[in-house]
Amino acid sequence: MDKTKIYYNKRGKLKDPVLIVGLPGIGTVGSLVGEHLRNTLNAKRLATLYSPHFLHQAIMMKNGGVRLASNRFYYSTNEKTGQSIIILVGDMQAGTPEGQYEINDRIVQFFKSLGGKTIYTVGGYNISNQYVTKPRVFGVATDKETRSDLQKNGVIMGQAAGAVWGSAGLIVAFSKKHKLHGACLMGETGMLEIDANAAKAVLEKLQVMLKLDVDLSSIDKIKKETENLLKEMEKAGGAPGDQQPPPPSQPLSYIR
Amino acid sequence: MDKTKIYYNKRGKLKDPVLIVGLPGIGTVGSLVGEHLRNTLNAKRLATLYSPHFLHQAIMMKNGGVRLASNRFYYSTNEKTGQSIIILVGDMQAGTPEGQYEINDRIVQFFKSLGGKTIYTVGGYNISNQYVTKPRVFGVATDKETRSDLQKNGVIMGQAAGAVWGSAGLIVAFSKKHKLHGACLMGETGMLEIDANAAKAVLEKLQVMLKLDVDLSSIDKIKKETENLLKEMEKAGGAPGDQQPPPPSQPLSYIR
Amino acid sequence: MDKTKIYYNKRGKLKDPVLIVGLPGIGTVGSLVGEHLRNTLNAKRLATLYSPHFLHQAIMMKNGGVRLASNRFYYSTNEKTGQSIIILVGDMQAGTPEGQYEINDRIVQFFKSLGGKTIYTVGGYNISNQYVTKPRVFGVATDKETRSDLQKNGVIMGQAAGAVWGSAGLIVAFSKKHKLHGACLMGETGMLEIDANAAKAVLEKLQVMLKLDVDLSSIDKIKKETENLLKEMEKAGGAPGDQQPPPPSQPLSYIR
Amino acid sequence: MDKTKIYYNKRGKLKDPVLIVGLPGIGTVGSLVGEHLRNTLNAKRLATLYSPHFLHQAIMMKNGGVRLASNRFYYSTNEKTGQSIIILVGDMQAGTPEGQYEINDRIVQFFKSLGGKTIYTVGGYNISNQYVTKPRVFGVATDKETRSDLQKNGVIMGQAAGAVWGSAGLIVAFSKKHKLHGACLMGETGMLEIDANAAKAVLEKLQVMLKLDVDLSSIDKIKKETENLLKEMEKAGGAPGDQQPPPPSQPLSYIR
Repeated sequence: MDKTKIYYNKRGKLKDPVLIVGLPGIGTVGSLVGEHLRNTLNAKRLATLYSPHFLHQAIMMKNGGVRLASNRFYYSTNEKTGQSIIILVGDMQAGTPEGQYEINDRIVQFFKSLGGKTIYTVGGYNISNQYVTKPRVFGVATDKETRSDLQKNGVIMGQAAGAVWGSAGLIVAFSKKHKLHGACLMGETGMLEIDANAAKAVLEKLQVMLKLDVDLSSIDKIKKETENLLKEMEKAGGAPGDQQPPPPSQPLSYIR
Repeated sequence: MDKTKIYYNKRGKLKDPVLIVGLPGIGTVGSLVGEHLRNTLNAKRLATLYSPHFLHQAIMMKNGGVRLASNRFYYSTNEKTGQSIIILVGDMQAGTPEGQYEINDRIVQFFKSLGGKTIYTVGGYNISNQYVTKPRVFGVATDKETRSDLQKNGVIMGQAAGAVWGSAGLIVAFSKKHKLHGACLMGETGMLEIDANAAKAVLEKLQVMLKLDVDLSSIDKIKKETENLLKEMEKAGGAPGDQQPPPPSQPLSYIR
Repeated sequence: MDKTKIYYNKRGKLKDPVLIVGLPGIGTVGSLVGEHLRNTLNAKRLATLYSPHFLHQAIMMKNGGVRLASNRFYYSTNEKTGQSIIILVGDMQAGTPEGQYEINDRIVQFFKSLGGKTIYTVGGYNISNQYVTKPRVFGVATDKETRSDLQKNGVIMGQAAGAVWGSAGLIVAFSKKHKLHGACLMGETGMLEIDANAAKAVLEKLQVMLKLDVDLSSIDKIKKETENLLKEMEKAGGAPGDQQPPPPSQPLSYIR
Repeated sequence: MDKTKIYYNKRGKLKDPVLIVGLPGIGTVGSLVGEHLRNTLNAKRLATLYSPHFLHQAIMMKNGGVRLASNRFYYSTNEKTGQSIIILVGDMQAGTPEGQYEINDRIVQFFKSLGGKTIYTVGGYNISNQYVTKPRVFGVATDKETRSDLQKNGVIMGQAAGAVWGSAGLIVAFSKKHKLHGACLMGETGMLEIDANAAKAVLEKLQVMLKLDVDLSSIDKIKKETENLLKEMEKAGGAPGDQQPPPPSQPLSYIR
């Protein structure tokens, strides 16, 4: 196996599909958003991506099973609009430029082959090392139309600077190359390993933009658990910037 | 040489071959099990795997000879059952994801081409940094049938969590992809460089499962040598967790 | 995307084109020279090079846009001589030998396909860790003729020793292989992150050699800003060798 | 350029050619031997090997020229025996396993295509961190015949253990694979960056084995210069193991 490959699990009928990419990264914001959507939308597996550029490890499962590391496409339907929602989640991203270019180009081409036209990737945007209580959502997008659409919905455009690492950035850049609409939504975060608050902020934007009806109570629960831990640490004299609160119990099992 | 290659040393007649993979890794458990089986079963060389993903070094031999690093397939026959036993041992594993994916996929395909249906890989499972006197054997497997078979034989299923690195994990994951039965047996170990006790625990399980009759006295000798060294170190005030006992004299020459 | 690719933006008519390579590197000398020429010569985009060997990140733009990292060819005309001037600038260079060999060979072949015969690359040459007030320009070149031409124009030949890293070196070495004339001009610099003084020294040589009429006032402004900062730091007791002055405000936005 | 390539400089008539490989490595022993033979045998360039696996840098030359890094084959004739002597020297070795496998396999195949049957590689063998005044020469070889030949000439066989890194090891291992005779001669050395004494020891063995008549006075000069420096350092209270004497002035220019 020397190339990235995508295998169909089930060929579903799709209607004007939109892709939401929620992969591991800063603050675990992408994975939290992706897994939350997958769960609440009760999405089914569409396809699985394997790659020799993932870490050379097999993932152990709770039932004693074992599998290759993967990125996984799930699909569901937006009940309000009838639009197909495709969600990409996964165990990891590639660790090299060559691997990232191969995988992310492949993802965009696969989605294009499904008839898709618009991709939203999700990431974290780290500005300070303070817990961010009211996280903003920053955005970049491939074209004027998508940028103005994001801006109308309160996403801050043109202020984030520098580079977006990994799939969250490259998938949007490849969308442009393949003439799709692409945007990256970045929840403001601050050094937390798992920042459910930043994820919630992005989910709220996606809800409005995609006219999705998503229950946010489970992500709210993780958010509150984290905030309580941070308060306890502060009481105990720990500076939230110096020390990580232990990741909340739920999201880990929830993500895997 | 830019791809992994497997060369036949001798094409033997095989009957329902089972593959046991014992390569270098945590606690040297894999190599100890592999080399012990090779020796006690008096196995003959079947094939040799070379790869440009192994370290760029030539191995010096005791007779003044020199050779490329390799992984080596040996074969023998289970005298009780008539089943062919194939054992994979070697000098090293690849150091990159791309190399590991290439080599381990090749290994599974090669074994499948021999008519094989079941693969057991062997590794160490490191929980504490204490010497483990009564090591348990943890397992993961590709399918329900194999999992229940392992469980019946006292292998602990569904408790090990996280990832299995390298060949021990990827060969099992690729077994699944190529529709073979695969399992990884992990001997509980604790920071020892060469843990013959963990290896013995795995060998005992393999014996029962494969109805093999293997003399364990030589591995027992290494185990006792290590335990004596640990006792002496404790007497001398050394904490077994902090300091490695020198690896026993025997297994090194025995493995090379 | 698994290979470096060059896409035309506009096929212009070129006359005896010369290539000037100004990519990121020591003292940002290359980028400063390249971007300064691109601006003052009002050059238009000719072609864009993408590569899976660039860092796996997407570049955020000021307007909220986003794009793949790239190296970019611009073209303009020397009004005095009618010669086409091609300028190569970019966000980054590859991080591995394999990537650098692929990209730089491709660049030289692309320029050769345009009918070009001569390439000048620009870099910094770091000798001391003092700010260099009167930077010399050191050179290496592919052939006797080019070397004597450089020498006539005050470029110091045969004194720089060792190796020229990255595109500045490899493009010249590949020029030789493809039977083009190539030279690397290295502005003497000393540990500054952005050394406009070294860039100015190289620009002055290029002006003479290519009979170019380039306004140097904007690069002079950056140079003076840096020198004022260094003076203030010295007054405040800081040793210029120990501490970097903050990069001047202008060149960063100017380069991006 | 994405593969290692060998270009002929001049196709000479060769008689029963033997290859001596003297590339950079431990104690610079290989390069010292290779360059000494090239100089004293007045060898001519036969072929040049380029590789994208060498460091991404261009080598500056004394005349202001510049070139790709390379490994270079030179040829001469043993005046006593009429045998063609081919010498391989170079700027560097590849830094990755994949690069090393590609280059060294290519070298052996190229030499085989010249009708060659025997290869000697040269390296350093580092045992202590003391300067070795009477260095022994250790050897490994592909076959019994070559091993007994080395032993007859005082090369110590079967005592060096572990692995031989890089070209010195892999070229011999690939010789075996391509059914040539191969041997690695390792001069005992101790932490010196440039150890002319170890090189001299190897040269003396090669002289006898190949019936070569080589003037050793220039390498002797380097050796004495180093020894004088070590004595001065000892007088000044410096421990030879802790501190490197500056490399002698001659060999550097001599090697480049």
